[in-house]
Amino acid sequence: MKLDFDKQGGLVPAVIQDHATGRVLMLGFMNQEAFQRTVESGFATFYSRSRNKLWLKGETSGHRLVVKEISTDCDQDALLVRVEALGPGVCHEGFQSCFFRTLREGEWAVSESRTYDPAQVYGGTK
Amino acid sequence: MKLDFDKQGGLVPAVIQDHATGRVLMLGFMNQEAFQRTVESGFATFYSRSRNKLWLKGETSGHRLVVKEISTDCDQDALLVRVEALGPGVCHEGFQSCFFRTLREGEWAVSESRTYDPAQVYGGTK
Repeated sequence: MKLDFDKQGGLVPAVIQDHATGRVLMLGFMNQEAFQRTVESGFATFYSRSRNKLWLKGETSGHRLVVKEISTDCDQDALLVRVEALGPGVCHEGFQSCFFRTLREGEWAVSESRTYDPAQVYGGTK
Repeated sequence: MKLDFDKQGGLVPAVIQDHATGRVLMLGFMNQEAFQRTVESGFATFYSRSRNKLWLKGETSGHRLVVKEISTDCDQDALLVRVEALGPGVCHEGFQSCFFRTLREGEWAVSESRTYDPAQVYGGTK
């Protein structure tokens, strides 16, 4: 049984979930090579659509994602990766989860506080 | 603040999570219209890439997804929808979650039991 990378131009979406709390931390994309590196290294590795290259999550920040379990869905065109997240947050904007905006009365509202200062981690870039 | 539907040809991936247990149940895609219907109706509605049309989850099975909360991520190109799932399972193959296969020693193994018989719900089709 193989993953179906063809449905979406060589990529599958990968949901990243904290294995202890169940919180969904981010959604990334993996190509075949990123998936293989994730499995072999034990650290979540994505394909960056904006930079067009492999992206070891945490390579700059140190906030790596330690893989605990990998599941796929019925169509085998999506992944669920349960991880231990190293560091205070997964989001490059300084939040624990990238899903920090919640719909409230038709507007996206920031619904939690930052857990770290991204300027200190990423050297002033956002 | 708008969702970024352009990055992926008019669609955004939507992670569906059980609001009570935290279990990730499925991943679907929404276009602008599916997102609006989801918000307005309170039932998760997707865009089916295989059938090229809107798809009210549960329209055949009755297993609708009642929306409890909708979040978006930092890039506003993905959704996290926390739901109450009506019925015994979200997956059309008879499982509680579509993510019923787990990677074990390099193979995808079915890691749980069915919660209902899909033949009885979908009239013999899978």
